[in-house]
Amino acid sequence: MPQLDLSLDAAQLTAQLVDIPSVSREEKVLADAVETALRELPHLEVLRDGNAVVARTALGRAERVVLAGHLDTVPIADNVPSRLEDGILWGCGTSDMKSGVAVQLRIAATVPEPNRDLTFVFYDQEEIEADANGLKRLAEKHPEWLAGDFAVVLEPSSGEIEGGCQGTLRVLLHTTGERAHSARSWMGRNAIHGAAPILERLAAYEPRRVEIDGLEYREGLNAVRIEGGVAGNVIPDACTVTVNFRYAPDRGEDEALAHVREVFDGLYEDLVVDDSSPGALPGLGRPAAAAFIEAVGGTPQPKYGWTDVARFSALGVPAVNYGPGDPNYAHKRDEHAHVDKILHCEERLRAWLTLNGSNPA
Amino acid sequence: MPQLDLSLDAAQLTAQLVDIPSVSREEKVLADAVETALRELPHLEVLRDGNAVVARTALGRAERVVLAGHLDTVPIADNVPSRLEDGILWGCGTSDMKSGVAVQLRIAATVPEPNRDLTFVFYDQEEIEADANGLKRLAEKHPEWLAGDFAVVLEPSSGEIEGGCQGTLRVLLHTTGERAHSARSWMGRNAIHGAAPILERLAAYEPRRVEIDGLEYREGLNAVRIEGGVAGNVIPDACTVTVNFRYAPDRGEDEALAHVREVFDGLYEDLVVDDSSPGALPGLGRPAAAAFIEAVGGTPQPKYGWTDVARFSALGVPAVNYGPGDPNYAHKRDEHAHVDKILHCEERLRAWLTLNGSNPA
Repeated sequence: MPQLDLSLDAAQLTAQLVDIPSVSREEKVLADAVETALRELPHLEVLRDGNAVVARTALGRAERVVLAGHLDTVPIADNVPSRLEDGILWGCGTSDMKSGVAVQLRIAATVPEPNRDLTFVFYDQEEIEADANGLKRLAEKHPEWLAGDFAVVLEPSSGEIEGGCQGTLRVLLHTTGERAHSARSWMGRNAIHGAAPILERLAAYEPRRVEIDGLEYREGLNAVRIEGGVAGNVIPDACTVTVNFRYAPDRGEDEALAHVREVFDGLYEDLVVDDSSPGALPGLGRPAAAAFIEAVGGTPQPKYGWTDVARFSALGVPAVNYGPGDPNYAHKRDEHAHVDKILHCEERLRAWLTLNGSNPA
Repeated sequence: MPQLDLSLDAAQLTAQLVDIPSVSREEKVLADAVETALRELPHLEVLRDGNAVVARTALGRAERVVLAGHLDTVPIADNVPSRLEDGILWGCGTSDMKSGVAVQLRIAATVPEPNRDLTFVFYDQEEIEADANGLKRLAEKHPEWLAGDFAVVLEPSSGEIEGGCQGTLRVLLHTTGERAHSARSWMGRNAIHGAAPILERLAAYEPRRVEIDGLEYREGLNAVRIEGGVAGNVIPDACTVTVNFRYAPDRGEDEALAHVREVFDGLYEDLVVDDSSPGALPGLGRPAAAAFIEAVGGTPQPKYGWTDVARFSALGVPAVNYGPGDPNYAHKRDEHAHVDKILHCEERLRAWLTLNGSNPA
């Protein structure tokens, strides 16, 4: 079994991690290596569920911080083993997100007495369909393993803090009509024409901008699909507009749906929810978060896409993305990470978790 | 080779015709039988092109009338041979349109000296794609064979005169935009929202009603299809609305297109003509038509669908549908025709073509 050497710095450790392939669903070898390495650390309790590994301190601190990352990568694209060149580490997972995992492991190994209790979460199957997601499984089976006052997901963010995330709701708005031959169109009722007020409403919609914890979120309400029509000579009796609402995390799922129903009130025959994921509040006002921002530096940005930070938010744990990788190179053949950014991330997190003299590195 | 007996009445002759199968593309046996029978009639010149047969008089009359019908049927549905029961003839093609063909053949055989010169057109491949249509082929290769002052297409019309036909134009209206992730919708431009004014214009459109030769035509402008969308989380950069304009035959093809362009002026990125077929003026004001209406009786109705009468109209020959079959039973397993309607149609046409003592039947 491959061994991990947690005495290496985070960049060297990233190379070790990259050289143990762990494409989604094939994380076992790497999960075993991570579990074995963590079990060497007497200050941590280690838990395992499938190919997810959780390790945590139990020091009775006032706050608990969760550091989370996924072990899996997208399929290898001729870019393993890793290769170090001029301060840049190339290879599958260097950015997304074995450099983040390396930082987690380094903090686990080198901060035995952190100023806050720590939970390290290493999970599987993040790069595939949401239903297979290892963090989702843990949240359902062992929510207590994920408990905490604040979570940092070390997904690639180029060393910037990205706070919370938008919610997303997708609904199908159906209009109906009556078929007729288009040569006798007055005998029918055109469902596509019936969708005109829906599109008008969308085109005229003024999306809200709202500031939460100092971050500005911009919402958006958009048709992402429209479909209607029977044949070139038939008045169509059905039309469907698929609408995607991306909303700021100060609205809940139900409020988002109520808003969409209100916007299109009276304009559709039927509304069907196709997909719904709540947003995540940045929670940057919490003491743990404020100290984190101060230690890490920079200006937090809102996260627009939907990420696993929302799973923590759903458990009542405010969460941010903060990782050394560059998201622009995630999933690419030329995926890479900068050694200095990896080391900087390790150093910043250590500083945050050892400040006030609790425990120098 | 099967023989046709033109001394039978039109209903009996219909049965003979039905009993010679002639599904589209397999009309040869029937076309041969029709040609052979017509060549027995010394007052007719007989022409042949593929499986189309044309026969005509050359009496130097002031007007020429064309009687046209197709020889082919839709696929047989266990309804051949024909069956006569209580004055109803059952079988494939009884309505559409071997009863009409039988009437043509009876007039050809029994009116050697008509009051107007006559052209009988029997053509192939009407029941399949327009490009294969035998009348279209004749119009292109031998337009002089179709020349005349007035044409009667003996398609099933339940013995009613249906005058002219609507034109039909189908255009694709394209709107464009710019793709973006729907979480950052302000980075893109939504092409589906861009189609809103097109649908509004359609929903608000007041179609024209116009009287031509005493027939009221109702136009219609309708979306018959709409398509747009890339993925559930992408602002779409393209949307296409397919619009069908059914117009009264006082507009030409170019005028119809100009009208559509004007209606949607400024609302689309691109307009592509998908399909265009001109309408046909009923031409009921022509002397031959007026005499026809008087002889046949009843109130002419406008024809809303597009039919082969428009091919005559395109050649400058006003045309109507008038045939003994019931269009509601065309293409059906229980296709049938009433013997008395077939005989009535034969009698009415003969009366029209022999009135004023030119030539009693």
